[in-house]
Amino acid sequence: MAGTKFSYVKKFELPDPLLPNTFILVRIDGHAFHRLSEAHEFMKPNDERALQLMDHAAQDVMNEFKDIVLAFGESDEYSFLFKKATAVYNRRHAKILTTLTSLFTSSYVFNWQKYIPDVALKYPPTFDGRVVLYPTSKEMRDYFSWRQADTHINNLYNTVFWALVQQGGQSTTQAHATLRGTQSKHKHDILFSHFGINYNSLPERYRKGSVLVREEVVEDARHTDTTPTGNDIQQSTENLEAKSEKKLRTTIKVYHCDIIQNNFWEEHPNILQG
Amino acid sequence: MAGTKFSYVKKFELPDPLLPNTFILVRIDGHAFHRLSEAHEFMKPNDERALQLMDHAAQDVMNEFKDIVLAFGESDEYSFLFKKATAVYNRRHAKILTTLTSLFTSSYVFNWQKYIPDVALKYPPTFDGRVVLYPTSKEMRDYFSWRQADTHINNLYNTVFWALVQQGGQSTTQAHATLRGTQSKHKHDILFSHFGINYNSLPERYRKGSVLVREEVVEDARHTDTTPTGNDIQQSTENLEAKSEKKLRTTIKVYHCDIIQNNFWEEHPNILQG
Amino acid sequence: MAGTKFSYVKKFELPDPLLPNTFILVRIDGHAFHRLSEAHEFMKPNDERALQLMDHAAQDVMNEFKDIVLAFGESDEYSFLFKKATAVYNRRHAKILTTLTSLFTSSYVFNWQKYIPDVALKYPPTFDGRVVLYPTSKEMRDYFSWRQADTHINNLYNTVFWALVQQGGQSTTQAHATLRGTQSKHKHDILFSHFGINYNSLPERYRKGSVLVREEVVEDARHTDTTPTGNDIQQSTENLEAKSEKKLRTTIKVYHCDIIQNNFWEEHPNILQG
Amino acid sequence: MAGTKFSYVKKFELPDPLLPNTFILVRIDGHAFHRLSEAHEFMKPNDERALQLMDHAAQDVMNEFKDIVLAFGESDEYSFLFKKATAVYNRRHAKILTTLTSLFTSSYVFNWQKYIPDVALKYPPTFDGRVVLYPTSKEMRDYFSWRQADTHINNLYNTVFWALVQQGGQSTTQAHATLRGTQSKHKHDILFSHFGINYNSLPERYRKGSVLVREEVVEDARHTDTTPTGNDIQQSTENLEAKSEKKLRTTIKVYHCDIIQNNFWEEHPNILQG
Repeated sequence: MAGTKFSYVKKFELPDPLLPNTFILVRIDGHAFHRLSEAHEFMKPNDERALQLMDHAAQDVMNEFKDIVLAFGESDEYSFLFKKATAVYNRRHAKILTTLTSLFTSSYVFNWQKYIPDVALKYPPTFDGRVVLYPTSKEMRDYFSWRQADTHINNLYNTVFWALVQQGGQSTTQAHATLRGTQSKHKHDILFSHFGINYNSLPERYRKGSVLVREEVVEDARHTDTTPTGNDIQQSTENLEAKSEKKLRTTIKVYHCDIIQNNFWEEHPNILQG
Repeated sequence: MAGTKFSYVKKFELPDPLLPNTFILVRIDGHAFHRLSEAHEFMKPNDERALQLMDHAAQDVMNEFKDIVLAFGESDEYSFLFKKATAVYNRRHAKILTTLTSLFTSSYVFNWQKYIPDVALKYPPTFDGRVVLYPTSKEMRDYFSWRQADTHINNLYNTVFWALVQQGGQSTTQAHATLRGTQSKHKHDILFSHFGINYNSLPERYRKGSVLVREEVVEDARHTDTTPTGNDIQQSTENLEAKSEKKLRTTIKVYHCDIIQNNFWEEHPNILQG
Repeated sequence: MAGTKFSYVKKFELPDPLLPNTFILVRIDGHAFHRLSEAHEFMKPNDERALQLMDHAAQDVMNEFKDIVLAFGESDEYSFLFKKATAVYNRRHAKILTTLTSLFTSSYVFNWQKYIPDVALKYPPTFDGRVVLYPTSKEMRDYFSWRQADTHINNLYNTVFWALVQQGGQSTTQAHATLRGTQSKHKHDILFSHFGINYNSLPERYRKGSVLVREEVVEDARHTDTTPTGNDIQQSTENLEAKSEKKLRTTIKVYHCDIIQNNFWEEHPNILQG
Repeated sequence: MAGTKFSYVKKFELPDPLLPNTFILVRIDGHAFHRLSEAHEFMKPNDERALQLMDHAAQDVMNEFKDIVLAFGESDEYSFLFKKATAVYNRRHAKILTTLTSLFTSSYVFNWQKYIPDVALKYPPTFDGRVVLYPTSKEMRDYFSWRQADTHINNLYNTVFWALVQQGGQSTTQAHATLRGTQSKHKHDILFSHFGINYNSLPERYRKGSVLVREEVVEDARHTDTTPTGNDIQQSTENLEAKSEKKLRTTIKVYHCDIIQNNFWEEHPNILQG
């Protein structure tokens, strides 16, 4: 057969299993999103529509990959945590990484118009992805603390920066110069004294990022969940997993809460157990 | 600083360079495309619009990754060959693989409406991807021969199968039973004697797949290139790379030609050189 | 310079760091030791001299690699556990694995005559080695339980097998047939009823294997340590690490104790901490 | 069964196949051989006995691994080349690397007394090892050119250095200072004008290193091979592979010849074919 004599080339596809019983973390990053945000006139310092679109794509990923127990998003990046024992795709590295990255990308493009209806997408946006393994819950928690600390640092800087530019009339060059070497406290002061902005009263979404977890809710409580708080987008996707008899179903909840302190983890003990 | 004490988790991101001076092959595969083709009523055995959409996405990938010297597509899969010496992203495995897979996916969704305007996309389609390394041009050529032989085998089967179903009135179960154990010659016979179809006169796109290469064309010849043969889609994307003075530019050409025999390779010697 | 134009080949040496903060386990296995034991007339079912030689080589390894916190040996294999945080050789996979395997081999040959003085080594014995990573102390403990359970299973089988051959006059083929399908209890019965051997009274070394740990001892207690119990071989190598003033020094102790139950681990809490 | 509940830990042993049909190069390096050569009073700048011992260990490795087609040694390092198509140990990385490194080490210790009979080995010498893959014969040849160029550079430096110390009465610090920044030509001049040494008349072993290849010899020519030239050590090991009828056998030859130019490769075409 024609195909037979060539099929030896399949042997060059090498196995790539990830270490068992280790936390699999996949982080997606927007590729050249500075350009994308310019080309589509994203609002500065934060564009809530674009962030909601990211959250939607992340939720689609969690609906597809049932073993993801936590996701965290900020700006143009999203991190997904698989439970330690997951056997998804037999823990094959490339298979997990590419399918997840592809689905995130696909959902982002597919849902663009829903969130940003008045700006047509001009070209295909892309993301890159990577897998990182964490052996214990300690490193895993520190990873999420690292990302949320980063969210805070970046958002504080960007908030002051764009206030200086948009309201203070500085050029972007001047604004960077103004902020060079400033401590966190100093940035708070500039915001408050010059622009009357109390940083801590800004939306939590911007200051804390998005935290996606699975929670079980009682069936009857369904209508309560779908109030237009914007914190629960399960109505748009198929995340209803009927639990027989108990009238429970699992839903994906979106929070903008602290995940550095212990509270969040104590309320979601299943994540630490992996 | 808050971020500092957590940033040690970055050390868990391990280097993943691919072996230098080795052909990098990335293959993208549609994920659950059987379902996708059902849900969007793709024509059987081949849907030319869907294949053209694949070709478009592949061309977007080649426009982004200048070191891709050859791509081959069939059905819901596409293979991309980087030249041996490529230093793209410092040959980082995950970076190359995910960016390419993401761009292909993004372009597929982004351009869906252009090729399949009368069927709205119902959900985000996804692809997975993998990297395979080939040490020499021998294995690399055999890889492409393997894929094109596979194209032939699948297309012949599918062509007879759907003729039996669509024109012969067989159920899909009956059609599979009819074909069980048949040789290639027998399938040709069924096609010709029962349905008057000469397999070799079917469109080359279906029998050979799509072959994308870069070619230099003389600037003046531009209008010739863009005749509506459907074989050259460079007009839809930015693949014009002006070569100073010589009035040459590089364009991506789409062929549906044999790549198992020597002809193609002799006409494109740069690919073998890697 | 002559060397310069060739030195690009160094780029093909790829980095191979092991995942940080994960238990590194290196297991050494004798290569073709069945042949070696035949050629040098090892005693059956156990040759204490050969086992002591293994222990000596393992101790040399622990003296060289200060971050090894536990070693376990049985028959012709030895397992070494590095503490989780070890930075030895920057956690480079091949460097750690080959240096350790080489040292073990070298010590085995170097010290052969000391333990088996009346049989000259006929050819160079070899070992292979592998690295396994364990994310938490649970899997790490289960690894050692697995090896010690294996020690028990193999030793019970071998003890009955060789009793049947050496004292029972069976051929090796007959002895294997006698034992086929027997449970543990049945083997104990054969040993006791046919050969008057109470398995549980056999030397612990054979039933439990060798367990090497570091312990701090008070300087004055030195002479006590070196009583001829055979359980402490530190006198033959340089494992004395004087602790200034406190008059403590670290020594490597060899036990033949249970490591499946909790006792051992409670007495050596530092091993679990990694 | 006791062992059963723990045996899941075996799943953490991950596959590690090397890319097929690629040259496998294993390089062994002496670990802390500066100290070893001091402790055993190796002659400077070269100790022929120690080099012959290295050659012997390398030959033992080649006798064990029939797919090694070339080896090159200098100082305390040795490189081994497997043919591209080798399926030894199913191309498992750690298995090949550790078995080879262990055998080399074992042979070195085992044969020490044969080559350096008047100096007892004081402690176990060790080697580390690494695998490097080369996709084509070009990189593979350049690798060996790199090592032989290195041999030349090091040996020229060491020869002048030790002449300055041993015959010129300089301290080692002075000798390094004398040589700092000197070109190759200058070093030749110092050797000749101060010490009457024509570098190019020094033994080829020191200037070129050792080159081990397999060659077929006619059975009758056996006695010719074993003349005491020191270039053929096959008499000490079992490298006789009788070729039926043709009365040919394969032997391992040790040369100290140039492997940078084409001659050597034209005379051993099988090595390039891999």
